[in-house]
Amino acid sequence: MTGQVAAPDRVPTRERIVLAAADLYRRHGYTGTGMKQVAADAEAPFGSIYHFFPGGKEQLGEEVIRRAGGMYALLLPAVFDPAPDPVTGVRTFFTLAGEHLKASGWQDACPIATVALEVSGTSEPMREACAEVFSGWVQAGTERFTAEGLDPEQARAFTLAIVSALEGAFVLARALRSTEPLDAAGEALAARAAELFGAS
Amino acid sequence: MTGQVAAPDRVPTRERIVLAAADLYRRHGYTGTGMKQVAADAEAPFGSIYHFFPGGKEQLGEEVIRRAGGMYALLLPAVFDPAPDPVTGVRTFFTLAGEHLKASGWQDACPIATVALEVSGTSEPMREACAEVFSGWVQAGTERFTAEGLDPEQARAFTLAIVSALEGAFVLARALRSTEPLDAAGEALAARAAELFGAS
Repeated sequence: MTGQVAAPDRVPTRERIVLAAADLYRRHGYTGTGMKQVAADAEAPFGSIYHFFPGGKEQLGEEVIRRAGGMYALLLPAVFDPAPDPVTGVRTFFTLAGEHLKASGWQDACPIATVALEVSGTSEPMREACAEVFSGWVQAGTERFTAEGLDPEQARAFTLAIVSALEGAFVLARALRSTEPLDAAGEALAARAAELFGAS
Repeated sequence: MTGQVAAPDRVPTRERIVLAAADLYRRHGYTGTGMKQVAADAEAPFGSIYHFFPGGKEQLGEEVIRRAGGMYALLLPAVFDPAPDPVTGVRTFFTLAGEHLKASGWQDACPIATVALEVSGTSEPMREACAEVFSGWVQAGTERFTAEGLDPEQARAFTLAIVSALEGAFVLARALRSTEPLDAAGEALAARAAELFGAS
């Protein structure tokens, strides 16, 4: 078994840098993450960061945000495709998020929200990267819920409400060390789904 | 008129320090806010920060969080007391939040969410301060909505959903430079209120 797991030096250096930075953002935020710590955690020479990311901290930040955004986007079909109906899908989405957050010792929430709040007033390229990620999620959700019967405007508003409730519930859940905010937000959005889709 | 406005030196130094720090947290987050910048913005001698806050950055941070939390708690009765019903109250709450955020150039959102995400994994006293603030809000909302006819468990879950949706919608609104997430989240929660309170 262990022979099939890639050793740290088998993962390309550039990839290790991106993964280490993403993990550090989750725990310390973007501002609190130093390039030396990224290099140390990635087991990469300090200079290699600037080799792969000549734009430095901001360029690495943008890539981490876009990559994390693409990864999280996969969760939408992963949860909603097997769900029997959108109401169950919404409830499952929030329940799984809570279970994952708790299992990670309340650390592994969305790194994009932290970065978005930190940089929205100070780094325009980073703010734009966060905005692109959120817009991508909203578009994917809008298409899905439109295909499931909502009119596009309703589908878009419903998606925005889900993403907002999820991101905010992460904030409260991390601070309170409890999945209760995720459960409560999920219940409210599931009720909204039942109303919109006419199911229960 | 101008004679009645307190000159900067009339506001006590300790108060100026707290207000300057709160403003810097909103724009740069807790990690990105240096004590020298706080002193400069507060027009206070650097040493005075440690005179008033011997515990340094963390003690100042805790006080800013608790003070901001107390200030925001006043918004709940300020919006809901004059509202004709809870549905209107919820909708107004999100609309005003969006208008205020936009008017401030997308800067003046809740400083507590940023700090909560930054410090939840790294500073236990700061995390506890954030948790106390959120718990206080949830308790106030639970009491209000219980008095308005919900059973306490429903009232608590509904309050958690409102606070979660508001905090998350701030994240998206700041990144997207749009009040749309606040409007969409407010609409979803107003619909939930209509269902719970039986109004429309």
